[in-house]
Amino acid sequence: MPDLRRDPVVGRWVIISTDRSGRPHDFTQLLPSRPISTALCPFCPGQERLTPKEIMAYRPQPSEANAPNWSVRVVPNKFPALQVEGELGREGLGLYDRMNGIGAHEVIIETPGHKDGLGDLPAQKIEDVLWAYRDRILDLKKDPRFRYILIFKNHGASAGATLEHSHSQLIALPIIPTSVSGEIEGCRAHYQQKERCIYCDIIRQDLTDGDRIVAENPEFVCVTPFAPRFPFEMWVLPKQHAGYFEEGQKGQFEFLASMLSEVLRRMDKVLARPPYNFVLHSSPPHEHTGDFYHWHLEIIPKLTQVAGFEWGTGFYINPVSPEESAKFLRDTRL
Amino acid sequence: MPDLRRDPVVGRWVIISTDRSGRPHDFTQLLPSRPISTALCPFCPGQERLTPKEIMAYRPQPSEANAPNWSVRVVPNKFPALQVEGELGREGLGLYDRMNGIGAHEVIIETPGHKDGLGDLPAQKIEDVLWAYRDRILDLKKDPRFRYILIFKNHGASAGATLEHSHSQLIALPIIPTSVSGEIEGCRAHYQQKERCIYCDIIRQDLTDGDRIVAENPEFVCVTPFAPRFPFEMWVLPKQHAGYFEEGQKGQFEFLASMLSEVLRRMDKVLARPPYNFVLHSSPPHEHTGDFYHWHLEIIPKLTQVAGFEWGTGFYINPVSPEESAKFLRDTRL
Repeated sequence: MPDLRRDPVVGRWVIISTDRSGRPHDFTQLLPSRPISTALCPFCPGQERLTPKEIMAYRPQPSEANAPNWSVRVVPNKFPALQVEGELGREGLGLYDRMNGIGAHEVIIETPGHKDGLGDLPAQKIEDVLWAYRDRILDLKKDPRFRYILIFKNHGASAGATLEHSHSQLIALPIIPTSVSGEIEGCRAHYQQKERCIYCDIIRQDLTDGDRIVAENPEFVCVTPFAPRFPFEMWVLPKQHAGYFEEGQKGQFEFLASMLSEVLRRMDKVLARPPYNFVLHSSPPHEHTGDFYHWHLEIIPKLTQVAGFEWGTGFYINPVSPEESAKFLRDTRL
Repeated sequence: MPDLRRDPVVGRWVIISTDRSGRPHDFTQLLPSRPISTALCPFCPGQERLTPKEIMAYRPQPSEANAPNWSVRVVPNKFPALQVEGELGREGLGLYDRMNGIGAHEVIIETPGHKDGLGDLPAQKIEDVLWAYRDRILDLKKDPRFRYILIFKNHGASAGATLEHSHSQLIALPIIPTSVSGEIEGCRAHYQQKERCIYCDIIRQDLTDGDRIVAENPEFVCVTPFAPRFPFEMWVLPKQHAGYFEEGQKGQFEFLASMLSEVLRRMDKVLARPPYNFVLHSSPPHEHTGDFYHWHLEIIPKLTQVAGFEWGTGFYINPVSPEESAKFLRDTRL
């Protein structure tokens, strides 16, 4: 059983998942990892037996589960960081706090095509991936043990992907990760002072300033944030205030898919198909934060190796201004 | 002039330092960076002309500045992230806050030997490096513009080092980085409740538990933290409460040097000389946090590539328990 442990100073929870571990010399060899790209890719059609049994799949025609003819397929992670069965078992150990590593860890296989990146897919196929995110969130929200549902994507070996075939991941957690709780507190403080959502204010400011806009459509805007941690960092936000990604409607997901398609293609063009991460930031399911928290998607190309000490300090040096990044991304011809 | 910008939601300041920048295609090639290891290493004795003029140096015999025969040498960073001359120029830009990127960015060249790692040096030479940290902090503390003085080390290309020759860096900042301010708030809350320093409590708990202790001497203890973000993460703490690194006395620095020597050699042995970062966490010079904040050094071997999405979430999955890490480190024969 994995362990969830809380840092007593800063309150950050970490998963200690030793089932995925080995001896120390295993770690010394981890660093130059490469995605597995074999004829036996477990995410390719026809190899469904290589994954745990599917949780759901979209199939254009009704067809058998765990067999080909799907367009999006969701399976449990074969090496889960958390375990779905069991009690939380919260306890104190002297000064410290721990609980069992209860949670869900799923993989969203975005396309049957082994070589397609998410940005290579037609917008309609990207929309299917977004519906899969939504369906899984709505299902997992019913479980009161889960305080947060994290959707993220590691693309490329240096962004942490261990398999080449395009996929996203979902982790349902009994705690709220610090990135989200920090944002929620910031939003709450702004709302208490001004009765406005700060992300709505950011959208207004950025549309007025204009020089950090990467792309815009009737429902969504993509900006490079004013104080980005990383070169070419991008945020995609719904223009109308919305706290919960999973409450998006058909028309919105269409526009989100076309926005995502556009900005991923712009990024691929300007940065020569970089490794990247994206993380969906949405309201925690059981908190009443929808009035002041505004869901969004953060996209971070993994470009620089300068991030050595940033991990230890939370302090970032970014060699590209967001205005310059946005201009490159906006001006490139698709 | 670099720009310091504040994220309006979470309050994190970042440096936008475009003088170090280039065109986008420069970034696509940054990732597989390797340390420059040439006959023209700017940190080797005899090549002093390749660095900016030295700020200070320890010389066993009195000798000319910017010439060989030094044991530790401190120079301005040739490509500084911040600029030392100028006004802070704090201003609001609509919703946003910025100021000029004022600060100091220095390099501490730890040894004349090109091939020596810090852990390879005799403890007495490590002590010299610690005295250099102290001297630079005491000097820069006099400048009221600087709210924090950050000392860190990137060792190895994948930990962010761009030069192979062993060195640390110092950045003096007009803001307090989030890692430190988050810790200070955690310490303050604990102190308000219990009138005890939380790091003192951690030391007592860990010495009682025993299984997270890596090494101990009369003045210092090295532990693997209860909730570590990374495999083999280590913290070195003074056993007696102390808020400010730079107030350490001769006897203490001797014990710190021997502790650092021991734990770096243990790490090098168990993990086959890994790339690593360390970051000194000490009280901000002009805040009265010394009663409840306890300075310490965080050492993070750079082992795993799994840290893709961790950047975006503040949420960490660690495949090794700290008890297991500590046992490997403690039990290895030096």
